[in-house]
Amino acid sequence: MEVMILNRIAALRNYMNHHNLDTFIIPSTDPHQSEYVADHWKVRTYFSGFTGSAGILIITQKVAALWTDSRYFLQFEDECGNSEIELYKQSIPHAPEHIPWLCNLLNKKDTIGIDFRQFSKSQIDYLKDCIGDKEIQLKNHPHFTKEIWLDRPSLPKGKVSNHSLEFSGESAKSKLAKVQLELKKQKADYYFFSSLDEIAWLFNIRATDVDFTPLVTSYALVGVEETILFCNCERFSQEHLEELKSIGVSVLDYDEVAVELPKLSKETVIVTDVFSLNYACYNAIQGSIVHQNSVVKEWKSIKNTTEINGAISCMKKDGVALTKFFMWLEESLQHKKLSEYEIGRKLESFRAEQERYSGESFAAIVGYKGNGAIIHYTAPKEKSALVEKKGILLIDSGAQYKDGTTDITRTLWLGGEPSEAIKQAYTAVLKGYISLEQISFPEGTIGVQLDVLARMHLWQEGLSYPHGTGHGIGSFGMVHEPEQGFATSGVTSRGTAIHKENQLTTIEPGCYVAGEFGIRIENIVLSKFSKKTQFGTFLKFEPLTLSPIDTQLILVDKLSEKEIQWLNEYHQKVYDTLSGLLNKEECEWLKEKCKKI
Amino acid sequence: MEVMILNRIAALRNYMNHHNLDTFIIPSTDPHQSEYVADHWKVRTYFSGFTGSAGILIITQKVAALWTDSRYFLQFEDECGNSEIELYKQSIPHAPEHIPWLCNLLNKKDTIGIDFRQFSKSQIDYLKDCIGDKEIQLKNHPHFTKEIWLDRPSLPKGKVSNHSLEFSGESAKSKLAKVQLELKKQKADYYFFSSLDEIAWLFNIRATDVDFTPLVTSYALVGVEETILFCNCERFSQEHLEELKSIGVSVLDYDEVAVELPKLSKETVIVTDVFSLNYACYNAIQGSIVHQNSVVKEWKSIKNTTEINGAISCMKKDGVALTKFFMWLEESLQHKKLSEYEIGRKLESFRAEQERYSGESFAAIVGYKGNGAIIHYTAPKEKSALVEKKGILLIDSGAQYKDGTTDITRTLWLGGEPSEAIKQAYTAVLKGYISLEQISFPEGTIGVQLDVLARMHLWQEGLSYPHGTGHGIGSFGMVHEPEQGFATSGVTSRGTAIHKENQLTTIEPGCYVAGEFGIRIENIVLSKFSKKTQFGTFLKFEPLTLSPIDTQLILVDKLSEKEIQWLNEYHQKVYDTLSGLLNKEECEWLKEKCKKI
Repeated sequence: MEVMILNRIAALRNYMNHHNLDTFIIPSTDPHQSEYVADHWKVRTYFSGFTGSAGILIITQKVAALWTDSRYFLQFEDECGNSEIELYKQSIPHAPEHIPWLCNLLNKKDTIGIDFRQFSKSQIDYLKDCIGDKEIQLKNHPHFTKEIWLDRPSLPKGKVSNHSLEFSGESAKSKLAKVQLELKKQKADYYFFSSLDEIAWLFNIRATDVDFTPLVTSYALVGVEETILFCNCERFSQEHLEELKSIGVSVLDYDEVAVELPKLSKETVIVTDVFSLNYACYNAIQGSIVHQNSVVKEWKSIKNTTEINGAISCMKKDGVALTKFFMWLEESLQHKKLSEYEIGRKLESFRAEQERYSGESFAAIVGYKGNGAIIHYTAPKEKSALVEKKGILLIDSGAQYKDGTTDITRTLWLGGEPSEAIKQAYTAVLKGYISLEQISFPEGTIGVQLDVLARMHLWQEGLSYPHGTGHGIGSFGMVHEPEQGFATSGVTSRGTAIHKENQLTTIEPGCYVAGEFGIRIENIVLSKFSKKTQFGTFLKFEPLTLSPIDTQLILVDKLSEKEIQWLNEYHQKVYDTLSGLLNKEECEWLKEKCKKI
Repeated sequence: MEVMILNRIAALRNYMNHHNLDTFIIPSTDPHQSEYVADHWKVRTYFSGFTGSAGILIITQKVAALWTDSRYFLQFEDECGNSEIELYKQSIPHAPEHIPWLCNLLNKKDTIGIDFRQFSKSQIDYLKDCIGDKEIQLKNHPHFTKEIWLDRPSLPKGKVSNHSLEFSGESAKSKLAKVQLELKKQKADYYFFSSLDEIAWLFNIRATDVDFTPLVTSYALVGVEETILFCNCERFSQEHLEELKSIGVSVLDYDEVAVELPKLSKETVIVTDVFSLNYACYNAIQGSIVHQNSVVKEWKSIKNTTEINGAISCMKKDGVALTKFFMWLEESLQHKKLSEYEIGRKLESFRAEQERYSGESFAAIVGYKGNGAIIHYTAPKEKSALVEKKGILLIDSGAQYKDGTTDITRTLWLGGEPSEAIKQAYTAVLKGYISLEQISFPEGTIGVQLDVLARMHLWQEGLSYPHGTGHGIGSFGMVHEPEQGFATSGVTSRGTAIHKENQLTTIEPGCYVAGEFGIRIENIVLSKFSKKTQFGTFLKFEPLTLSPIDTQLILVDKLSEKEIQWLNEYHQKVYDTLSGLLNKEECEWLKEKCKKI
């Protein structure tokens, strides 16, 4: 591996030499600022060997440096520890901390090579701001891998499916009409979309272009009179194309975006979100661009009744699958050891038995003992740790069903005597989960305000965790969906977005000690109306996830009466909802796990 | 009053007509962006009749509009309800919400009159940004009151005193040397200061220029080799001037700043905080300006041992004065009614008996029943409400002592049967205070993260309060001192500033029902080292304020064991610390108030 990476970096340096480039920046994203990208776009992984979902590689003739956040520090050591690549630790995930570093490193009039498509307009603005008066030039090199990455995978070609009204709850026609109304309000001509999840939602389309998320590689230009969806035509059924046509949507090939955008006249007013618009598209537009935080992002985050009912149905399916899985795990460990990897595959197979299952919503994390402390750990296919009936196991997993997306974490004690430290941490994590889930909060409250509720019990014990406390989740969409969530700062939208009625959000506090254990408890909650008083309208969260929370690690006398009541009621609800869907043996098993403490 | 204000606005409109001004903006501040201003600068009050500390008046030929925040809505109705001035409610205190409104109202090429000294550079930048391409002109009219406000008070002339090492704990020489070191680090020539509290701290000077805060009307230009303090020379003793001279400080008259700044050459590099630099000074500077969030602001917020000991000593003095006062109040109400106003004066007189007393740190709020709901209420000298031995009374007050500044709120039940609603609110406010004060938090934590701890118990009951939860406080300085605090958003520094060791901050949750009651409990806390674990360094708060918290309104069974323990221990500390400073009768009274619940 190390030699292969060395050769690739050497080939890139050679390319840079030929093209007079002092630096090359390779981000982890695609032309749509996606979190998960098609294999075609795994350029950063190709040149670094680092497979984490977030990370930026910078190559100069002397330096190879990679920026990533605390979720991936251990994974980086594992994958790149022996390479020449230096790790730069981001204090805030996704923050462009490499830019000031780079601008300081570069000399006046140096050149930077990038693929314009992989950078958003706002990222380039920030880069230019930092460059200041150093007169550094940005050069577009979209084909820089051509003679290096010979077997680079092609762009996705799979079939596009129609996400029917039964699951979406609103027709593409109705959604497009809302965008058109917005255009009229703003006296603009077009709305240009480049976020794949926004396009999937807007047109009710799905595909399997990227791992874990049913998105379709595309762009969309929505006009008051004409709408173009840029996505290779052969990916649609004839019927689907006609249906789209009937609501005023023409489908043109994906690459045609580079042909059509320049055709818009200078007088055209185009509304777009410059945080997702890539710099190549930005340069192709002659008309005037009006930046707007995408309206679709907000609409999409608020789930309609069909989507909420879908989510509730998926939680039942997940609950059933998890019951069968945890029961299997407990029984299997009585007489043998199981690798983390095979545990993950078995979990997948139980979910796959469920109706409308479409795949995992992210790479399941099955982390035994110290591996649980690697926050975005993926057990390798070969030689993953062998799990025995002792110690601690963290399992964070989720599924894509046609009617919804799930994400759940449970931490299990498998046997032996847990340390006080583990119990203390587990209890504080559970108390944090309950505190945040049980809060009633006024309209207008943002994530950074609420986040501490999940941390305060840990802090009191001198504990903490190095990640946010939750994120929005899609409906047969992205497992990490903008904008709301819980975070310790206002740097990301998870900190600054207002929580609104009918949103789905995860609550997932944790605690990690490297080499020893990882603890996390995660449910998906629905934001609901709570009450209206003279002080305003208050919202609350209702947990939708249905799976018992292991009680073996709880220090019961550290729980308040209310917390004990919460746990017992939650377990009662889990049992009542799932028991009708299980056989007798499973019911008995679940009853035991859900018994009152 | 109404007629007088009408005439003043008419005179201003006449002036505007003569000078072709479409709009005049009158803010509430002085050339130093001060919170409390000298009478000379009470221009907004002169033209509106509104006496609140925050508010912006906009006058056009057709409209008179005033922006202020929720603290002042009821006060505005009271003072301006019958005038033509319309209230615009700011959702966030100090946010420039009037600017977009104004920019929308104005026509292309309109003119705005302002006094450049009353606007900071950054405020003008924001205004210009909003104006966009409307080609609106800003005209400097520093003398617009000349023929209207004939008896406008002159600028302050009182003596400047030397805030000795005994109280400041660090010499001006040492503080200036730190600024000079900062200049060398930044390769800059001068640091220009215009915030009065920063100058007072830096030069260890105090005066009585403005109500409630011992600041000195001045500017300061600190250079590596020469330092100029702009403040009328006759205000200093000869000895003080010589002492300043001995540490390289020349004193020039206040107005000389307009002469000296333009003398700095174009090559000069001047570091300054553009959030406090006024636009007149900005225009006078030819050199290049480097913006920096003032280093003094941060240094000043971290108290040295002398200042912390001073604060502790002041809390004892305040505690003694408040004990005598509350005892007097209780006894007096047995046989008569007292006006809110005279209660405030009596409180002042008890504090004035204390050593090193210098005055109130803000206009004491004595709010009986519904008046307690007017958040920044000041009882009028005539006809303020008569307080009887029943119902609820909120008292928020503070003092300036030469060794420190205090700020405390207590809410008392005077007699009769309290409603469940009042008890519920009072209990939730107390629980909120305790939750925030008792938190242990990692280094790097900001105010917006912690704020909810004081609100969560209120929110659970559908209650809330429309203000932040606390602010920094000076040392014989400003009662509201930047930057740290607790707030619901990241818009102000109280939300975004990191809490650091050895800062003094108030914690003051409340609950208000218009026309019925106001409840607030406020202590000053000191940030201290708590513990160091593998998860980082944790800080905690220690309450310094010493005065019993009324227990009559507490729903004891809503308090957890820990909360009861906190209250009992706090009261024990209050009693133990103050009892040695009181006579026997006072001791007995205090013992009763501090008895265990």
